[in-house]
Amino acid sequence: MAQQERAIETRAAIIRGAAAAFQTRGYGSTSLAQVSAAAGVTKGALYFHFDSKEALAVAVIDAQHEASAAIGRTLLSENVLGLRAIIIMSLELARQLHEDPIVSAGVRLTIEAANFETPVAGPYLDWMEACEEYLRRGIAEGEISPDIDTVAMAHFIISAFTGVQVVSDVLTGRDDIEDRLIEMWAVVMPSLVPTDRWLELKDLPTRIREERAAA
Amino acid sequence: MAQQERAIETRAAIIRGAAAAFQTRGYGSTSLAQVSAAAGVTKGALYFHFDSKEALAVAVIDAQHEASAAIGRTLLSENVLGLRAIIIMSLELARQLHEDPIVSAGVRLTIEAANFETPVAGPYLDWMEACEEYLRRGIAEGEISPDIDTVAMAHFIISAFTGVQVVSDVLTGRDDIEDRLIEMWAVVMPSLVPTDRWLELKDLPTRIREERAAA
Repeated sequence: MAQQERAIETRAAIIRGAAAAFQTRGYGSTSLAQVSAAAGVTKGALYFHFDSKEALAVAVIDAQHEASAAIGRTLLSENVLGLRAIIIMSLELARQLHEDPIVSAGVRLTIEAANFETPVAGPYLDWMEACEEYLRRGIAEGEISPDIDTVAMAHFIISAFTGVQVVSDVLTGRDDIEDRLIEMWAVVMPSLVPTDRWLELKDLPTRIREERAAA
Repeated sequence: MAQQERAIETRAAIIRGAAAAFQTRGYGSTSLAQVSAAAGVTKGALYFHFDSKEALAVAVIDAQHEASAAIGRTLLSENVLGLRAIIIMSLELARQLHEDPIVSAGVRLTIEAANFETPVAGPYLDWMEACEEYLRRGIAEGEISPDIDTVAMAHFIISAFTGVQVVSDVLTGRDDIEDRLIEMWAVVMPSLVPTDRWLELKDLPTRIREERAAA
Protein backbone atom coordinates (compact mmCIF):
# COMPACT_ATOMS: atom_id res chain seq x y z
CA MET A 1 0.00 0.00 0.00
CA ALA A 2 2.79 2.42 0.96
CA GLN A 3 4.51 1.41 -2.26
CA GLN A 4 1.38 2.16 -4.27
CA GLU A 5 1.08 5.57 -2.63
CA ARG A 6 4.69 6.32 -3.47
CA ALA A 7 4.03 5.35 -7.10
CA ILE A 8 1.05 7.72 -7.26
CA GLU A 9 3.16 10.45 -5.67
CA THR A 10 6.02 9.86 -8.16
CA ARG A 11 3.63 9.92 -11.12
CA ALA A 12 2.17 13.25 -9.91
CA ALA A 13 5.69 14.69 -9.45
CA ILE A 14 6.60 13.62 -13.01
CA ILE A 15 3.49 15.31 -14.40
CA ARG A 16 4.30 18.53 -12.50
CA GLY A 17 7.91 18.38 -13.72
CA ALA A 18 6.83 17.72 -17.31
CA ALA A 19 4.36 20.64 -17.18
CA ALA A 20 7.11 22.97 -15.94
CA ALA A 21 9.63 21.76 -18.55
CA PHE A 22 7.17 21.92 -21.50
CA GLN A 23 6.01 25.38 -20.38
CA THR A 24 9.59 26.72 -20.24
CA ARG A 25 10.96 25.23 -23.45
CA GLY A 26 7.95 24.17 -25.49
CA TYR A 27 7.11 20.56 -26.25
CA GLY A 28 9.51 19.91 -29.13
CA SER A 29 12.59 21.35 -27.40
CA THR A 30 12.10 19.47 -24.12
CA SER A 31 14.11 16.26 -23.53
CA LEU A 32 13.09 13.44 -21.20
CA ALA A 33 16.31 14.12 -19.21
CA GLN A 34 15.04 17.67 -18.56
CA VAL A 35 11.70 16.26 -17.40
CA SER A 36 13.32 13.81 -14.98
CA ALA A 37 15.53 16.63 -13.62
CA ALA A 38 12.53 18.99 -13.21
CA ALA A 39 10.53 16.22 -11.51
CA GLY A 40 13.41 15.15 -9.24
CA VAL A 41 13.11 11.49 -10.28
CA THR A 42 15.48 9.10 -12.05
CA LYS A 43 15.13 8.40 -15.75
CA GLY A 44 14.29 4.81 -14.77
CA ALA A 45 11.33 5.98 -12.67
CA LEU A 46 10.24 8.22 -15.53
CA TYR A 47 10.25 5.32 -18.02
CA PHE A 48 8.43 3.10 -15.51
CA HIS A 49 5.48 5.50 -15.66
CA PHE A 50 5.66 6.91 -19.21
CA ASP A 51 7.06 5.22 -22.30
CA SER A 52 7.41 8.33 -24.50
CA LYS A 53 7.46 12.13 -24.49
CA GLU A 54 4.07 12.09 -26.19
CA ALA A 55 2.65 9.92 -23.36
CA LEU A 56 3.91 12.56 -20.90
CA ALA A 57 2.31 15.36 -22.88
CA VAL A 58 -0.98 13.48 -23.00
CA ALA A 59 -0.77 12.97 -19.19
CA VAL A 60 -0.26 16.73 -18.66
CA ILE A 61 -3.21 17.44 -20.97
CA ASP A 62 -5.32 14.89 -19.04
CA ALA A 63 -4.35 16.45 -15.67
CA GLN A 64 -5.25 19.91 -17.00
CA HIS A 65 -8.50 18.56 -18.35
CA GLU A 66 -9.31 16.99 -14.96
CA ALA A 67 -8.62 20.30 -13.14
CA SER A 68 -10.79 22.16 -15.65
CA ALA A 69 -13.58 19.57 -15.68
CA ALA A 70 -13.86 19.99 -11.90
CA ILE A 71 -15.13 23.53 -12.62
CA GLY A 72 -17.96 22.11 -14.72
CA ARG A 73 -18.88 19.48 -12.11
CA THR A 74 -19.07 22.07 -9.32
CA LEU A 75 -21.32 24.33 -11.40
CA LEU A 76 -23.59 21.41 -12.32
CA SER A 77 -23.88 20.14 -8.73
CA GLU A 78 -24.64 23.63 -7.42
CA ASN A 79 -27.43 24.08 -9.98
CA VAL A 80 -26.12 27.43 -11.16
CA LEU A 81 -28.31 29.08 -13.84
CA GLY A 82 -27.08 28.35 -17.38
CA LEU A 83 -26.02 31.85 -18.45
CA ARG A 84 -24.26 32.49 -15.14
CA ALA A 85 -22.57 29.08 -15.37
CA ILE A 86 -21.04 29.82 -18.78
CA ILE A 87 -19.64 33.14 -17.59
CA ILE A 88 -18.28 31.66 -14.33
CA MET A 89 -16.76 28.78 -16.33
CA SER A 90 -14.85 31.23 -18.53
CA LEU A 91 -13.58 33.34 -15.59
CA GLU A 92 -12.61 30.30 -13.52
CA LEU A 93 -10.80 28.65 -16.43
CA ALA A 94 -8.98 31.95 -17.02
CA ARG A 95 -7.93 32.02 -13.36
CA GLN A 96 -6.58 28.44 -13.61
CA LEU A 97 -4.73 29.34 -16.82
CA HIS A 98 -3.09 32.30 -15.13
CA GLU A 99 -2.30 30.58 -11.82
CA ASP A 100 -2.00 26.77 -12.25
CA PRO A 101 1.18 25.64 -14.10
CA ILE A 102 -0.36 22.27 -15.09
CA VAL A 103 -3.37 24.00 -16.65
CA SER A 104 -1.33 26.53 -18.63
CA ALA A 105 1.08 23.81 -19.82
CA GLY A 106 -1.82 21.51 -20.75
CA VAL A 107 -3.61 24.15 -22.79
CA ARG A 108 -0.42 25.13 -24.54
CA LEU A 109 0.30 21.48 -25.39
CA THR A 110 -3.24 21.13 -26.74
CA ILE A 111 -2.56 24.02 -29.11
CA GLU A 112 0.90 22.75 -30.09
CA ALA A 113 -0.36 19.21 -30.51
CA ALA A 114 -1.88 19.46 -33.99
CA ASN A 115 0.79 16.95 -35.05
CA PHE A 116 0.61 14.49 -32.16
CA GLU A 117 -0.36 10.97 -33.16
CA THR A 118 -3.04 10.92 -30.44
CA PRO A 119 -5.58 13.56 -31.43
CA VAL A 120 -6.33 16.16 -28.75
CA ALA A 121 -9.71 17.38 -29.95
CA GLY A 122 -11.28 15.90 -26.80
CA PRO A 123 -10.98 18.90 -24.44
CA TYR A 124 -12.42 21.30 -27.03
CA LEU A 125 -15.33 18.95 -27.74
CA ASP A 126 -15.98 18.41 -24.01
CA TRP A 127 -16.04 22.16 -23.35
CA MET A 128 -18.34 22.73 -26.31
CA GLU A 129 -20.69 20.05 -24.99
CA ALA A 130 -20.73 21.59 -21.48
CA CYS A 131 -21.33 25.02 -23.01
CA GLU A 132 -24.22 23.66 -25.11
CA GLU A 133 -25.79 22.11 -22.01
CA TYR A 134 -25.62 25.48 -20.18
CA LEU A 135 -27.04 27.28 -23.22
CA ARG A 136 -30.01 24.87 -23.30
CA ARG A 137 -30.58 25.42 -19.56
CA GLY A 138 -30.34 29.17 -20.08
CA ILE A 139 -33.00 28.97 -22.79
CA ALA A 140 -35.30 26.93 -20.49
CA GLU A 141 -34.65 29.50 -17.73
CA GLY A 142 -35.54 32.40 -20.02
CA GLU A 143 -32.13 34.10 -19.76
CA ILE A 144 -30.90 32.98 -23.21
CA SER A 145 -32.75 33.65 -26.43
CA PRO A 146 -34.50 30.54 -27.82
CA ASP A 147 -33.57 31.72 -31.34
CA ILE A 148 -29.85 30.92 -31.02
CA ASP A 149 -28.24 27.90 -32.66
CA THR A 150 -26.86 26.26 -29.50
CA VAL A 151 -24.29 24.11 -31.36
CA ALA A 152 -22.86 27.05 -33.35
CA MET A 153 -22.95 29.37 -30.31
CA ALA A 154 -21.15 26.86 -28.05
CA HIS A 155 -18.57 26.27 -30.78
CA PHE A 156 -17.98 30.01 -31.10
CA ILE A 157 -17.82 30.74 -27.35
CA ILE A 158 -15.17 28.02 -26.84
CA SER A 159 -13.24 29.21 -29.92
CA ALA A 160 -13.41 32.87 -28.87
CA PHE A 161 -12.29 31.96 -25.34
CA THR A 162 -9.36 30.03 -26.84
CA GLY A 163 -8.31 33.03 -28.91
CA VAL A 164 -8.69 35.48 -26.02
CA GLN A 165 -6.40 33.37 -23.81
CA VAL A 166 -3.84 32.77 -26.61
CA VAL A 167 -3.59 36.49 -27.47
CA SER A 168 -3.56 37.46 -23.78
CA ASP A 169 -0.70 34.97 -23.27
CA VAL A 170 1.35 36.40 -26.17
CA LEU A 171 0.74 40.07 -25.32
CA THR A 172 0.73 40.07 -21.49
CA GLY A 173 1.55 36.56 -20.16
CA ARG A 174 -2.22 36.37 -19.39
CA ASP A 175 -2.09 39.27 -16.90
CA ASP A 176 -4.98 40.96 -18.77
CA ILE A 177 -7.06 37.83 -19.39
CA GLU A 178 -9.93 38.82 -17.06
CA ASP A 179 -10.32 42.29 -18.60
CA ARG A 180 -10.28 40.80 -22.11
CA LEU A 181 -12.88 38.18 -21.14
CA ILE A 182 -15.22 40.85 -19.80
CA GLU A 183 -14.84 42.61 -23.18
CA MET A 184 -15.58 39.33 -24.96
CA TRP A 185 -18.80 38.95 -22.97
CA ALA A 186 -19.79 42.55 -23.79
CA VAL A 187 -19.70 41.59 -27.49
CA VAL A 188 -21.36 38.17 -27.11
CA MET A 189 -24.14 39.06 -24.63
CA PRO A 190 -26.38 40.96 -27.10
CA SER A 191 -26.51 37.78 -29.25
CA LEU A 192 -27.31 35.59 -26.23
CA VAL A 193 -29.83 37.42 -24.09
CA PRO A 194 -33.53 37.91 -25.05
CA THR A 195 -34.36 41.58 -25.73
CA ASP A 196 -36.85 41.76 -22.83
CA ARG A 197 -34.20 40.62 -20.31
CA TRP A 198 -31.39 42.83 -21.68
CA LEU A 199 -31.48 45.70 -19.17
CA GLU A 200 -31.54 43.30 -16.26
CA LEU A 201 -28.79 40.98 -17.55
CA LYS A 202 -26.39 43.11 -19.57
CA ASP A 203 -24.08 43.74 -16.58
CA LEU A 204 -24.10 40.10 -15.44
CA PRO A 205 -20.46 39.39 -16.48
CA THR A 206 -19.21 42.46 -14.56
CA ARG A 207 -21.35 41.57 -11.54
CA ILE A 208 -20.03 37.99 -11.50
CA ARG A 209 -16.47 39.28 -11.71
CA GLU A 210 -17.08 41.59 -8.73
CA GLU A 211 -18.70 38.79 -6.70
CA ARG A 212 -15.67 36.59 -7.37
CA ALA A 213 -13.22 39.36 -6.43
CA ALA A 214 -15.13 39.96 -3.17
CA ALA A 215 -15.34 36.23 -2.28
CA MET B 1 23.53 40.69 -60.29
CA ALA B 2 22.83 37.07 -61.29
CA GLN B 3 24.54 36.10 -58.05
CA GLN B 4 22.30 38.41 -56.03
CA GLU B 5 19.21 36.95 -57.72
CA ARG B 6 20.40 33.46 -56.86
CA ALA B 7 20.88 34.52 -53.23
CA ILE B 8 17.32 35.88 -53.10
CA GLU B 9 16.05 32.66 -54.70
CA THR B 10 17.98 30.52 -52.19
CA ARG B 11 16.70 32.55 -49.26
CA ALA B 12 13.10 32.11 -50.48
CA ALA B 13 13.65 28.35 -50.93
CA ILE B 14 15.02 28.11 -47.37
CA ILE B 15 11.97 29.92 -46.00
CA ARG B 16 9.61 27.59 -47.91
CA GLY B 17 11.57 24.55 -46.66
CA ALA B 18 11.58 25.83 -43.08
CA ALA B 19 7.81 26.47 -43.23
CA ALA B 20 7.20 22.92 -44.46
CA ALA B 21 9.51 21.38 -41.85
CA PHE B 22 8.10 23.43 -38.92
CA GLN B 23 4.54 22.65 -40.04
CA THR B 24 5.21 18.90 -40.17
CA ARG B 25 7.17 18.48 -36.94
CA GLY B 26 6.54 21.62 -34.91
CA TYR B 27 9.22 24.18 -34.14
CA GLY B 28 10.99 22.46 -31.26
CA SER B 29 11.32 19.06 -32.96
CA THR B 30 12.72 20.44 -36.25
CA SER B 31 16.49 20.32 -36.81
CA LEU B 32 18.43 22.63 -39.15
CA ALA B 33 19.48 19.50 -41.10
CA GLN B 34 15.79 18.80 -41.78
CA VAL B 35 15.30 22.38 -42.95
CA SER B 36 18.26 22.23 -45.37
CA ALA B 37 16.94 18.88 -46.70
CA ALA B 38 13.40 20.27 -47.15
CA ALA B 39 14.79 23.40 -48.85
CA GLY B 40 17.16 21.47 -51.11
CA VAL B 41 20.18 23.59 -50.05
CA THR B 42 23.43 22.76 -48.26
CA LYS B 43 23.82 23.42 -44.55
CA GLY B 44 26.50 25.98 -45.52
CA ALA B 45 23.99 27.92 -47.65
CA LEU B 46 21.49 27.72 -44.80
CA TYR B 47 23.99 29.21 -42.31
CA PHE B 48 25.00 31.90 -44.81
CA HIS B 49 21.41 33.23 -44.69
CA PHE B 50 20.28 32.36 -41.14
CA ASP B 51 22.42 32.00 -38.04
CA SER B 52 19.90 30.12 -35.86
CA LYS B 53 16.67 28.16 -35.89
CA GLU B 54 14.96 31.09 -34.20
CA ALA B 55 16.12 33.42 -37.02
CA LEU B 56 14.51 30.98 -39.49
CA ALA B 57 11.27 30.94 -37.53
CA VAL B 58 11.23 34.73 -37.43
CA ALA B 59 11.79 34.81 -41.23
CA VAL B 60 8.82 32.46 -41.76
CA ILE B 61 6.68 34.63 -39.48
CA ASP B 62 7.82 37.74 -41.41
CA ALA B 63 6.99 36.11 -44.77
CA GLN B 64 3.55 35.13 -43.47
CA HIS B 65 3.06 38.62 -42.13
CA GLU B 66 4.02 40.09 -45.51
CA ALA B 67 1.53 37.81 -47.34
CA SER B 68 -1.19 38.75 -44.87
CA ALA B 69 -0.38 42.46 -44.83
CA ALA B 70 -0.87 42.48 -48.62
CA ILE B 71 -4.57 41.78 -47.92
CA GLY B 72 -4.80 44.94 -45.84
CA ARG B 73 -2.99 47.07 -48.43
CA THR B 74 -5.30 45.90 -51.23
CA LEU B 75 -8.40 46.70 -49.18
CA LEU B 76 -7.04 50.14 -48.26
CA SER B 77 -6.07 51.03 -51.84
CA GLU B 78 -9.47 49.90 -53.19
CA ASN B 79 -11.28 52.08 -50.65
CA VAL B 80 -13.51 49.25 -49.46
CA LEU B 81 -16.06 50.31 -46.81
CA GLY B 82 -14.83 49.64 -43.24
CA LEU B 83 -17.32 46.95 -42.18
CA ARG B 84 -16.96 45.10 -45.48
CA ALA B 85 -13.15 45.39 -45.25
CA ILE B 86 -13.03 43.69 -41.82
CA ILE B 87 -15.18 40.80 -43.02
CA ILE B 88 -13.18 40.37 -46.26
CA MET B 89 -9.94 40.53 -44.25
CA SER B 90 -11.09 37.63 -42.06
CA LEU B 91 -12.25 35.48 -44.99
CA GLU B 92 -9.13 36.17 -47.04
CA LEU B 93 -6.80 35.46 -44.10
CA ALA B 94 -8.73 32.22 -43.52
CA ARG B 95 -8.22 31.27 -47.18
CA GLN B 96 -4.46 31.93 -46.90
CA LEU B 97 -4.30 29.88 -43.69
CA HIS B 98 -6.02 26.97 -45.39
CA GLU B 99 -4.10 27.16 -48.68
CA ASP B 100 -0.68 28.84 -48.23
CA PRO B 101 1.88 26.68 -46.35
CA ILE B 102 4.00 29.71 -45.36
CA VAL B 103 0.98 31.44 -43.82
CA SER B 104 -0.17 28.38 -41.85
CA ALA B 105 3.39 27.71 -40.63
CA GLY B 106 3.89 31.38 -39.72
CA VAL B 107 0.70 31.57 -37.69
CA ARG B 108 1.47 28.34 -35.92
CA LEU B 109 4.96 29.58 -35.05
CA THR B 110 3.46 32.81 -33.73
CA ILE B 111 1.31 30.76 -31.36
CA GLU B 112 4.16 28.42 -30.35
CA ALA B 113 6.55 31.32 -29.94
CA ALA B 114 5.55 32.52 -26.49
CA ASN B 115 9.07 31.50 -25.37
CA PHE B 116 11.12 32.88 -28.27
CA GLU B 117 13.64 35.51 -27.27
CA THR B 118 12.34 37.85 -29.96
CA PRO B 119 8.76 38.68 -29.00
CA VAL B 120 6.16 38.00 -31.71
CA ALA B 121 3.38 40.28 -30.54
CA GLY B 122 3.87 42.38 -33.70
CA PRO B 123 1.46 40.58 -36.05
CA TYR B 124 -1.35 40.63 -33.50
CA LEU B 125 -0.81 44.32 -32.79
CA ASP B 126 -0.66 45.14 -36.53
CA TRP B 127 -3.92 43.29 -37.19
CA MET B 128 -5.58 44.99 -34.26
CA GLU B 129 -4.47 48.37 -35.57
CA ALA B 130 -5.79 47.62 -39.08
CA CYS B 131 -9.06 46.40 -37.59
CA GLU B 132 -9.37 49.57 -35.50
CA GLU B 133 -8.83 51.71 -38.59
CA TYR B 134 -11.63 49.86 -40.44
CA LEU B 135 -13.91 50.17 -37.40
CA ARG B 136 -13.35 53.95 -37.33
CA ARG B 137 -14.09 54.15 -41.08
CA GLY B 138 -17.21 52.04 -40.58
CA ILE B 139 -18.40 54.45 -37.87
CA ALA B 140 -17.81 57.44 -40.18
CA GLU B 141 -19.67 55.59 -42.95
CA GLY B 142 -22.64 54.87 -40.66
CA GLU B 143 -22.36 51.09 -40.92
CA ILE B 144 -20.81 50.59 -37.47
CA SER B 145 -22.33 51.86 -34.25
CA PRO B 146 -20.56 54.96 -32.86
CA ASP B 147 -21.10 53.56 -29.34
CA ILE B 148 -18.53 50.78 -29.64
CA ASP B 149 -15.12 50.92 -27.97
CA THR B 150 -12.98 50.55 -31.13
CA VAL B 151 -9.84 49.43 -29.25
CA ALA B 152 -11.65 46.72 -27.25
CA MET B 153 -13.68 45.60 -30.30
CA ALA B 154 -10.59 45.32 -32.53
CA HIS B 155 -8.78 43.41 -29.80
CA PHE B 156 -11.71 41.01 -29.48
CA ILE B 157 -12.22 40.48 -33.24
CA ILE B 158 -8.54 39.56 -33.72
CA SER B 159 -8.60 37.31 -30.63
CA ALA B 160 -11.84 35.59 -31.70
CA PHE B 161 -10.46 35.08 -35.22
CA THR B 162 -7.31 33.55 -33.69
CA GLY B 163 -9.37 31.12 -31.63
CA VAL B 164 -11.66 30.20 -34.53
CA GLN B 165 -8.69 29.29 -36.71
CA VAL B 166 -6.88 27.40 -33.92
CA VAL B 167 -9.95 25.30 -33.06
CA SER B 168 -10.75 24.77 -36.75
CA ASP B 169 -7.15 23.57 -37.23
CA VAL B 170 -7.35 21.08 -34.32
CA LEU B 171 -10.82 19.75 -35.19
CA THR B 172 -10.80 19.74 -39.02
CA GLY B 173 -7.36 20.82 -40.33
CA ARG B 174 -9.11 24.15 -41.13
CA ASP B 175 -11.52 22.56 -43.62
CA ASP B 176 -14.46 24.20 -41.79
CA ILE B 177 -12.82 27.58 -41.17
CA GLU B 178 -15.12 29.54 -43.50
CA ASP B 179 -18.33 28.11 -41.98
CA ARG B 180 -17.04 28.84 -38.48
CA LEU B 181 -16.10 32.42 -39.45
CA ILE B 182 -19.58 33.08 -40.81
CA GLU B 183 -20.93 31.87 -37.44
CA MET B 184 -18.48 34.18 -35.65
CA TRP B 185 -19.78 37.13 -37.64
CA ALA B 186 -23.39 36.16 -36.86
CA VAL B 187 -22.55 36.58 -33.15
CA VAL B 188 -20.45 39.75 -33.52
CA MET B 189 -22.60 41.70 -36.03
CA PRO B 190 -25.39 42.66 -33.57
CA SER B 191 -22.74 44.38 -31.41
CA LEU B 192 -21.24 46.17 -34.43
CA VAL B 193 -24.09 47.43 -36.60
CA PRO B 194 -26.38 50.35 -35.64
CA THR B 195 -29.98 49.22 -34.98
CA ASP B 196 -31.39 51.26 -37.90
CA ARG B 197 -29.02 49.54 -40.40
CA TRP B 198 -29.52 46.02 -39.02
CA LEU B 199 -32.00 44.61 -41.54
CA GLU B 200 -29.95 45.88 -44.46
CA LEU B 201 -26.56 44.69 -43.14
CA LYS B 202 -27.21 41.54 -41.11
CA ASP B 203 -26.56 39.23 -44.08
CA LEU B 204 -23.42 41.09 -45.22
CA PRO B 205 -20.96 38.32 -44.15
CA THR B 206 -22.95 35.67 -46.08
CA ARG B 207 -23.27 37.96 -49.11
CA ILE B 208 -19.51 38.65 -49.13
CA ARG B 209 -18.82 34.93 -48.89
CA GLU B 210 -21.09 34.27 -51.89
CA GLU B 211 -19.49 37.10 -53.92
CA ARG B 212 -16.05 35.59 -53.24
CA ALA B 213 -17.19 32.09 -54.17
CA ALA B 214 -18.65 33.40 -57.45
CA ALA B 215 -15.55 35.50 -58.32
